[in-house]
Amino acid sequence: MTDLTLYSMPSSGNSYKVRLMLAHLGKSYRHVGLEDDTQALADAHAAGTLPLGKLPVLVLGDGTALPESNAILCYLAEGSDWMPEDPLTRAQALGWMFWEQNQHEGVIAVRAALQTYPSRAHLATPERMAELLEAGHGILARMEAHLTGRDWFAGNAPSVADIALYAYTHSAGTKGGFEMDRFPAITGWIARMAALPGHVALDEVPA
Amino acid sequence: MTDLTLYSMPSSGNSYKVRLMLAHLGKSYRHVGLEDDTQALADAHAAGTLPLGKLPVLVLGDGTALPESNAILCYLAEGSDWMPEDPLTRAQALGWMFWEQNQHEGVIAVRAALQTYPSRAHLATPERMAELLEAGHGILARMEAHLTGRDWFAGNAPSVADIALYAYTHSAGTKGGFEMDRFPAITGWIARMAALPGHVALDEVPA
Repeated sequence: MTDLTLYSMPSSGNSYKVRLMLAHLGKSYRHVGLEDDTQALADAHAAGTLPLGKLPVLVLGDGTALPESNAILCYLAEGSDWMPEDPLTRAQALGWMFWEQNQHEGVIAVRAALQTYPSRAHLATPERMAELLEAGHGILARMEAHLTGRDWFAGNAPSVADIALYAYTHSAGTKGGFEMDRFPAITGWIARMAALPGHVALDEVPA
Repeated sequence: MTDLTLYSMPSSGNSYKVRLMLAHLGKSYRHVGLEDDTQALADAHAAGTLPLGKLPVLVLGDGTALPESNAILCYLAEGSDWMPEDPLTRAQALGWMFWEQNQHEGVIAVRAALQTYPSRAHLATPERMAELLEAGHGILARMEAHLTGRDWFAGNAPSVADIALYAYTHSAGTKGGFEMDRFPAITGWIARMAALPGHVALDEVPA
């Protein structure tokens, strides 16, 4: 596993998930950063480097290109403490990861993106932003309820589910404008995640 | 695994996934059908039977309630031929399942739902339906490209990924109004899935 190349979008939470996972696992990799607005991204699309047309993509030593951030997390974490061994705990971790992709990302990440990327500003109508704010607070309330009395999302240790949910949640206040002081259990979990040995921040992008 | 209870919505593809998986695995289970518009669903919500507020939910013998259709598939399939053993093939199967929840379901299933459920008819504006039709044909084109020259989504055998994608794709033409004759590889795959021993149709709901 020394021949890994990660195509990632430095500012994107889905890409950050994989960089954070690789850091925790202590795996070395070559990093190719492609921001949304660069020619390099268009070139990579044209060259067929990006299966399914999305970042991140992990390219293995034999050239196999693996897409889908949460699937990459599972691939990398298999056999480590980050992938629960107990079948039920593993299914619960996967459940939160499917929920993240189906319910959480389309609200929490999308509101932040509408505020962050100039190319999407025209979509940020007051009605849409208000709708996303209310929906996001509902999403965060669900996480808050689960974390009340629990340290981690699945089982008694941090797992791939925590990595998947951390990526966009840790910046939901600063980038998405969500009222995070309403969610003390989430705030405590974010602090626990950031204090783990091996943690890297979103902007600690490899050269 | 004889004490399984499945809370499922008979007409929903996400619930159908689990019934189809249980049929293929030959596992017996108690079935509780809750349609969207029944008092029983409201009662189940009020009783806290539905974690994350969605169907399906699989309740295990010890009372543990497992939500998220694709996570339930993984839990049930573990150790069977339906869950690829090879780490890369497994990650590719999971990748299609995350894609199904993030990209496919919100278009293919949603357009069908807007046409099917009277309670959602007010959301089915001509603009929305046209937008979903175009987006859905893009989604289906991606599946078509992958299935061209391949029989199954991950590896050389049917897997959890095929179950997850079959649930809403097999009725994309009849319920969603998508032009399926544009996608011969998908049409062939749908026929292969329906011909597998143990297959059950969406409307073959246990009593």
